[in-house]
Amino acid sequence: MEDQNKLLVIPLGGLGEIGKNMTVFQYGDDIVILDAGLAFPDDDMYGIDLVIPDITYLKNNIDKVRGVVLTHGHEDHIGSLSYLLREINVPVYGTRLALGLVEGRLKENNVGACKLVPVQAGDIIQLGIFKVGFIQGSHSIPDACGIYFNTPVGTVVHTGDFKIDQTPVDGKLIDIHKFAELGNKGVLLLMSDSTNAERPGYTGSEMEVSITLDDAFQQSRGRIILATFASNVSRIQQAIHSACKYKRKVIIFGRSMVNVVNIATQLGYLEMPEGTLIEPEEMNNYREDQVLILTTGSQGEPMSGLSRMATNNHRTVSVNPGDTVLIAATPIPGNETSVSKTIDNLLRLGAHVVYEKISGIHVSGHASQEELKLMLNLVRPKFFIPVHGEYRMLKQHGKIAERLGIPKENILIGENGCVFEFTSDSAKINGKVPSGKVFVDGLGVGDVGNIVLRDRQQFSQEGVVIVVVTLQKEGNIILAGPDLVSRGFVYVRDSEELMNEAQFRVQTALENCLGNNIMEWATLKQQIREALGKYLYEKTGRRPMILPIIMEV
Amino acid sequence: MEDQNKLLVIPLGGLGEIGKNMTVFQYGDDIVILDAGLAFPDDDMYGIDLVIPDITYLKNNIDKVRGVVLTHGHEDHIGSLSYLLREINVPVYGTRLALGLVEGRLKENNVGACKLVPVQAGDIIQLGIFKVGFIQGSHSIPDACGIYFNTPVGTVVHTGDFKIDQTPVDGKLIDIHKFAELGNKGVLLLMSDSTNAERPGYTGSEMEVSITLDDAFQQSRGRIILATFASNVSRIQQAIHSACKYKRKVIIFGRSMVNVVNIATQLGYLEMPEGTLIEPEEMNNYREDQVLILTTGSQGEPMSGLSRMATNNHRTVSVNPGDTVLIAATPIPGNETSVSKTIDNLLRLGAHVVYEKISGIHVSGHASQEELKLMLNLVRPKFFIPVHGEYRMLKQHGKIAERLGIPKENILIGENGCVFEFTSDSAKINGKVPSGKVFVDGLGVGDVGNIVLRDRQQFSQEGVVIVVVTLQKEGNIILAGPDLVSRGFVYVRDSEELMNEAQFRVQTALENCLGNNIMEWATLKQQIREALGKYLYEKTGRRPMILPIIMEV
Repeated sequence: MEDQNKLLVIPLGGLGEIGKNMTVFQYGDDIVILDAGLAFPDDDMYGIDLVIPDITYLKNNIDKVRGVVLTHGHEDHIGSLSYLLREINVPVYGTRLALGLVEGRLKENNVGACKLVPVQAGDIIQLGIFKVGFIQGSHSIPDACGIYFNTPVGTVVHTGDFKIDQTPVDGKLIDIHKFAELGNKGVLLLMSDSTNAERPGYTGSEMEVSITLDDAFQQSRGRIILATFASNVSRIQQAIHSACKYKRKVIIFGRSMVNVVNIATQLGYLEMPEGTLIEPEEMNNYREDQVLILTTGSQGEPMSGLSRMATNNHRTVSVNPGDTVLIAATPIPGNETSVSKTIDNLLRLGAHVVYEKISGIHVSGHASQEELKLMLNLVRPKFFIPVHGEYRMLKQHGKIAERLGIPKENILIGENGCVFEFTSDSAKINGKVPSGKVFVDGLGVGDVGNIVLRDRQQFSQEGVVIVVVTLQKEGNIILAGPDLVSRGFVYVRDSEELMNEAQFRVQTALENCLGNNIMEWATLKQQIREALGKYLYEKTGRRPMILPIIMEV
Repeated sequence: MEDQNKLLVIPLGGLGEIGKNMTVFQYGDDIVILDAGLAFPDDDMYGIDLVIPDITYLKNNIDKVRGVVLTHGHEDHIGSLSYLLREINVPVYGTRLALGLVEGRLKENNVGACKLVPVQAGDIIQLGIFKVGFIQGSHSIPDACGIYFNTPVGTVVHTGDFKIDQTPVDGKLIDIHKFAELGNKGVLLLMSDSTNAERPGYTGSEMEVSITLDDAFQQSRGRIILATFASNVSRIQQAIHSACKYKRKVIIFGRSMVNVVNIATQLGYLEMPEGTLIEPEEMNNYREDQVLILTTGSQGEPMSGLSRMATNNHRTVSVNPGDTVLIAATPIPGNETSVSKTIDNLLRLGAHVVYEKISGIHVSGHASQEELKLMLNLVRPKFFIPVHGEYRMLKQHGKIAERLGIPKENILIGENGCVFEFTSDSAKINGKVPSGKVFVDGLGVGDVGNIVLRDRQQFSQEGVVIVVVTLQKEGNIILAGPDLVSRGFVYVRDSEELMNEAQFRVQTALENCLGNNIMEWATLKQQIREALGKYLYEKTGRRPMILPIIMEV
């Protein structure tokens, strides 16, 4: 890896997963980092708040890092910057919207002075040996960029998150000319978004959503409540357009939505005509058909605005018959059930609910197969790494490239931590660097590991039975206990008999030990665990965690 | 509800949910139960194995129950029979396949002598005042039935789970003539399957899967591994047909799959030519292209055959490049992530994986909108209850009926426990009976309630810190402790400082209490919880469950 004439491309996140995107580009003594995102925890990561990439490799090469370049302002691309910058304080380059969102995050996380450098599509910056260019893209947030790197061994093009939207809401077409020009000049490596590689055809334009929105606004005689991702500024813009057209005032709920709207409005990314936005307190000054409520919660997140409304727990808004609720987002895999529950609850309250399955209320922000083919054919790279996707998406994207004539051996499917090594005419995977999931739980970063998670998992399935006993020091006399305390196992009031007998079993096991002069705590605890575990399994078919605690007086 | 001239229809499960279907039909002193299913637990039902309906209403009316009639043999229709029959031992009527599957279940659950009465489509039985007829249906299991009830106030038609498959694998067409005939004579009430009410168009025929299967068999030069629901006998039949055509032997893994294949073969529902089925040990006597492996695990269930293969944990089969894996099922909502992980792992092992998203390897067993319309138009009932669906599916099905001309007030959308009350020309919801989720955890039925679940949930998110202290009786002296034991909170070896300081805080709080002669345990525990909780939250941003235990000597 120390070969100075090679380009190294090292994904620290985003390969084999959707989320926590981060890629290292290294040539000689220069490193540039592309994106620094977070991922949301899987169901089996009990109690974890966020997951961020392992940056050990960067910390070990801290002197080489010249900067971070950002493709766009979504959490899975900027969400771990706070943690990265705390360790490695380097300049960050991105469009104004992305940096605006970053700034908010840094403040929240109390990260001190950082150098944030705004760029725009078309700009080229020099970072060490790398010439880095920003290309206008199109995605579900304004000013998403593709990024290319001119390196001594050739040009690398990274699409960022993109689709080829021919009628983008902000009017900024993806710069297909630039991709074509780069393709013409010759591209060593393309790294392209694989999110929708399994999806045939074309992804719809954000503009298509406008039609559904307009229909809904036209038909509704009551309040309209629209839930979407806070970061989907294009969707929010369309909702505001519709509100103006149909003379509705806009009220915003949800901290992240309020933040994004503020930042995007201040920076000129969101057009919010004077007098459109009103405060929640003012809502009652207007008729129901004069109101549009924008809220978070399109993923059914339990504490979000929409979920609270659906369960009648929102401090300001109670949903009534006559209200129209528009859920303008697709459930992210894993969220299907909570989104469905939210829809069901809103229907139970009598609302009219418009959701993706029965309408055109959402389009994806990512390119489908035909767009991916177009990108590959425009850029016609020598080598190809499908990125931003779970393993099967990468594979599928690889197959697409193969069918377009890229030789199979030039398509590199890897995982986080792989070191992709390039010369001007060769490519291989050469070793691995530390990579993986770093868990953020509350204030702790990386302090919750597998042991803690395993315990949480066992608790969550079977509960715990704690056995406490006080023994006389240097004697074999039980002074107090054994007392049994259980949580998450059985409801004690209904299980007195079970728990009494369990206590008796423990007592017998203990007395046996003490009678035989067995005094080692480890053995005592083992005997307690065995006697109690066996009895409880016989009676209940469950295996709670058993936690013996011995006190000595 | 005691009006003797009214028909009561009481769903105890399956309304507002997919799963645990059970409906009570009552007229005067006669009750017939239609289906007795189970549901699988939601993510937030920590550690629960199964969910079954609350049968309090039936236990309170035990003398009236004349029997159970089954529409078909899927778990969500027969899975709680063992629990029902233990409490209410009445005859069970169903087709031979359904009863064969029931028999297996009863044995497993050690349920004693029960009267299982085989019927076939076309049969009519008398149960109390009800004349009950079975109608040939079509679904993803053979011999699925619709059921109608002739009652003094009119005829009720229940579709069971159905689709209108014009080319069923077993050749048995759904008896559209019978539905038409009933419609002609006049139907008081239709209850129809709402699973796919959100889905436009028609559901594909099981036969369509054959084309994809045949392709896969034709192209594969290695082993073929096919995963599907054990209960999808039609799918299994097609796989066996393909195996025979392409001269492959069949090996079956997974207890439930082995059971179902045995029962279905014995009863003549599955055609398994002599010499097709071989034992796992014989597999190595054959070339890779002479082998078809059938396995469970199409839902990514962690302990299933396919998941074990995907993680290299299967005792017999290790997946290699060259193997083709066919996943012939759709992920049930909530299982998307585990299915995706299984696919990813199989791809990592080098297998070629065919799954629904990229192929026609699965079709639903449930009618889509056009079929639902056909059913409604055939039966043209006076009243309509959409059943078998989550709330939004019921609503959507109701809308479909409305568009076909059924008056809105004749469409009854209810939930579990609703008492639907009918005369020959009126219908209303009249009160509720106990209904809800009864949790099965290990051997316990109903002994895990909300308190236990809440504890499990809290553990799973934040872990637990146990504080133990031994006090002298009638004094205010600490004899031992306070000792802190934590699980699922922090990894103790890395957090000594935190835990030492925490212990000091508890000690101080305790000494303060004792110094002030505060000796009530409740107060002591409260003080410990407050001091410790505050400190830990400050330092970690987490709120573990704090469990103070006081011993007295």
